[in-house]
Order: sequence, then structure tokens, then C-alpha cells
Amino acid sequence: MKKIAHLGPPGTYGEEALRAALGEALGSVELAPLETNRDVVLAVENGEADVGFVPIENSVEGAVTETLDALVHDAPNVQIVGELVFAVHHCLIGAGPTAYDQITTVTSHPQALAQCNEFIHRNLPNASRLAQVSTAEAVKRAIAEPGVAAIGSRIAADTYGGTVLAESIEDSSGNLTRFVWLSKQPLEAIGESGGAAKTSLVFSGFNDTSPGALVSILSEFAYRSVNMSKIESRPERTTLGHYLFFVDLDGSTDDEAVANAIEAIRGKVRELRVLGSFTAFEA
Amino acid sequence: MKKIAHLGPPGTYGEEALRAALGEALGSVELAPLETNRDVVLAVENGEADVGFVPIENSVEGAVTETLDALVHDAPNVQIVGELVFAVHHCLIGAGPTAYDQITTVTSHPQALAQCNEFIHRNLPNASRLAQVSTAEAVKRAIAEPGVAAIGSRIAADTYGGTVLAESIEDSSGNLTRFVWLSKQPLEAIGESGGAAKTSLVFSGFNDTSPGALVSILSEFAYRSVNMSKIESRPERTTLGHYLFFVDLDGSTDDEAVANAIEAIRGKVRELRVLGSFTAFEA
Repeated sequence: MKKIAHLGPPGTYGEEALRAALGEALGSVELAPLETNRDVVLAVENGEADVGFVPIENSVEGAVTETLDALVHDAPNVQIVGELVFAVHHCLIGAGPTAYDQITTVTSHPQALAQCNEFIHRNLPNASRLAQVSTAEAVKRAIAEPGVAAIGSRIAADTYGGTVLAESIEDSSGNLTRFVWLSKQPLEAIGESGGAAKTSLVFSGFNDTSPGALVSILSEFAYRSVNMSKIESRPERTTLGHYLFFVDLDGSTDDEAVANAIEAIRGKVRELRVLGSFTAFEA
Repeated sequence: MKKIAHLGPPGTYGEEALRAALGEALGSVELAPLETNRDVVLAVENGEADVGFVPIENSVEGAVTETLDALVHDAPNVQIVGELVFAVHHCLIGAGPTAYDQITTVTSHPQALAQCNEFIHRNLPNASRLAQVSTAEAVKRAIAEPGVAAIGSRIAADTYGGTVLAESIEDSSGNLTRFVWLSKQPLEAIGESGGAAKTSLVFSGFNDTSPGALVSILSEFAYRSVNMSKIESRPERTTLGHYLFFVDLDGSTDDEAVANAIEAIRGKVRELRVLGSFTAFEA
């Protein structure tokens, strides 16, 4: 039986995404909800979990910077072995059927409250706002106290026995979070969707510091017709003005062009780490 | 008198950074704390504030995605006119001098609680964690209720009359947030630090979709010896698989090389917007 670490408590959006991805495989795995995304990465590194599931882009709860920092600095043996893109839809949840004018307090994670700002202004203009550490905690509170409504996931309403009063109440649609599967071993079919291969890598410290050093590095991909689907620079945790570059490539490190490009770049930078080759998510 | 919009309430880290940047100019401006970073961007666009001050990278409170989205989609006339990099140091704050073992609850914005996870585990192992919408709200709560300590800024302790029990309690140092000044007009010396010129731009939709299209675009900078200090791709809010690219360049649009590179790129992409040329922050 596989043990899967993820950000807890039960009922967060991460768990909703995880359950959707697992489908029927859910019955044959053990879920281990942890306190932070960093704890999830470390649990995989230390062998306390076989697999980890963490947000890597645009999460509602939990800092994504924390995931990337932990991968780069604290987990040399952990690889990205899969990805999932999940659309977060916020629900308004009460203990039971409740009219909007009976709601005196609306509670959630501050990010979720901010993402539903217009809905709250329009429909709950007099409700006070109360923060919680997670949307799941917010749903538990709403169910325990009359007059309190929570913003959270449908799965939290199901898990804790709440009533969904309104659905998709976020101000702008397209609230997408990208999650990745982490493991120290190659992962069999769990959560894969049959797309093309993809490789994530991170590098830092250009040996050539002239203007255009980054272009010279990226040209190694272009020259071999390897497409980049994502590039992101982030300040290094230690020194301002030094950047880590996160790059996603089409293709696997088993492809000769990808492998050769990575080797060529290795000679031009101080540090390069392949975070993993895996199957790209297709909706 | 200039009116400066920023994320409220008083005592958040954004206000601490703003006060540090303004220095003696503080006496001659009016501060307008608003509810979200998006509200700050819109206040400048609509002329309700002369200047805005928002986080654009690695904020403790408030989503930075929200700032970038508002700039790109909702504020065609707003320009970035300056920047500031600020090191966030968390304080533990109580109503008065309090021993750690008298603290039963520790309260803050969830991001700040997560960033002080190790400190809490080590020093306050039995305290329960209570979330707030902002660190300022957390400090107000701690001051009102014995046994509650807040994680927040030194300025919040000063503003609301709290006692700093411990300083720099964050787990990892180098917790840097980059803020930008926004305006519809060029900004005089306020908050500038005498560094070199810098230009921020955003573009999307490559006309050439072959592998290497991004490299072809970035080569326009390299060819003219224009250095990039930052590049970041983000999914467009509307469609998965479409990316916005945010790029910071050394130099101003008044420089011929920068201006020519931008014009060359304009012909290769669907949309390009110069977010502003301004003086780079120097510590």
C-alpha cells in the first residue's frame, strides 16, 4: 500500500484535487495530511511517505515558494514524477440551509476570502470576515456555529457534514492550481493522463556574466528544437540579485536532444538539477 | 499633498516598508489603506490616489498574482515608477511582558504562522494557532486578550501599543519582498535610491509558435547587449497553456538599444505592454 503525503487537514483544495486524480485508486492508498508543503517534501525525502502531492503554481492555501525552496535546498533525492492542473471553485458553506441575511460572519483562509471579495460585497455586505488557517478549518467552524458561513471546497462540505449554499463564488474564473507528484522512485500510472513527456529543471549561477548569458543558455534548447513551456526566475533565498531559473521542457531526459541540451547547459552554469521527467497533464 | 494607496490595515508589513521608504517625506503625504492589492491598483487607475504601493514578489500578506493580474488586465494607464526591496522580520508580540509558557494561543496571517513554524514548535509547543486576515489584525487581538501572542511587524506593536517579546523569529532569513510604486504620472524623487535604470514589461502570444520562439524574442535583447535581470512566465488567467511573460531589463526606454529591442519584439508577439522604466533599488 502506498502512503501519500499532502497538505492537510482533510477537506482542503489539495485533498479535493488529490481525490479527483486518484479516482478508483483511492481505496488502495493511505493519505497522510501534514502541516506544511515543506513537511510533505521532507516526508518523501526521509522515506516517511512513498509519494507526495504538493502545489507548485497558484495555490489558494500554502505558499508555493515553500514547495520550490524545499525541493531545491532540502530534498536532493526527490523527483517530480507527475503533474495535475486543477480548477479551484469556491463554495459558500453553512451548517444547514441558511438565507444570506442570516449570515453574520463569513470565514475562510485569507486568500480564499480575497478571491471572493465581490461576491461577499454583493451578497453579504454586513457580514464580518474571520480568517482561518485553512478552508477546512473554516468549514468546521461554520458547521459548529449558527450565523457563520465558510468559503471552502465541496469535499470539505461533504467531509464535515455542511450544506453548500452557493457554488463557484470566486470573482474571476480560471483559478487554476498546478500540483505535482513527488517520489524517490519512478511512479506507475497513478494520476497520469496520457499526455506527452515533460521535464522540469532548475539552474543557477551563470559562468558567463555578460548580457545575453541567459539567451546563450536557452539557445542550447532552441538549437536542438527543444521547446520550453515555462520559465521562471526567482531570487535565491540567500542573496539578493542572484536568481534560480525554473524551466519546463517538452520531452523527456530519455530523448537525445533534451539530454544533450542539458549537458551543454551544465557546462555554462554553477548548479543544475533535473527535478524530473514526467507525463504532462492534459485536461 | 500626495495620496498614497496601500494594502491595509495600519501595521501590516506593506505599511512598514512604505514608512521606511518615505522617511521624512511621511509628514507631507496622506496614506490610504485599502482592502486588497487589486483595490490599490484600481485606485491609481481611477485617480482616487496619486500613487500606489504594492508587493510584486514574495509577499507575506496578499497575493502577488492579484497585483500582476490587475496591472495587466484592469489598469492600462498605471505605470511602475519605482521599486523597493524590503526584508520582512517577524516579531512575537503580546499585550505586555509575557513568559512563553503563559502563551496559550499564537495568532497571525497563515503565511506568517507558516514562516515561523520552527520557532512555534520549539518555544510554544502547546499553543494553539489562530488565523487572522492580516498580521495587524493579529496584533490587535493579542493586545485585547491575555494569553494570546501575535506574529507581526514591529510597527504594528508600536501602532497598537503591544510589547515585542522576540524579534526575527522567522525560520529562514532572507525573507525579501519586492514592492513597486505605481502612478499615472512620472514620480519625483520619492523612495528612489539612486541606482541604475530598469524597465519592466509584459508580453504574450507568440506569432511564431515553433520551438525556440521565446529564444528568438529574447535574442533581440542579447543582440543589443540589453541584460535581463528577471523573467517569469505565468499562465494567462483565461486559458491554460497560454503564458504571459514578465521581463525586467537593465536600462530605460529612453535608451536606444532598449527602445529598439522592444520595438523588434512588438512585431513578434500578440500583445506587449511596457509597465514602466524606473530606478532600480539598491540596498
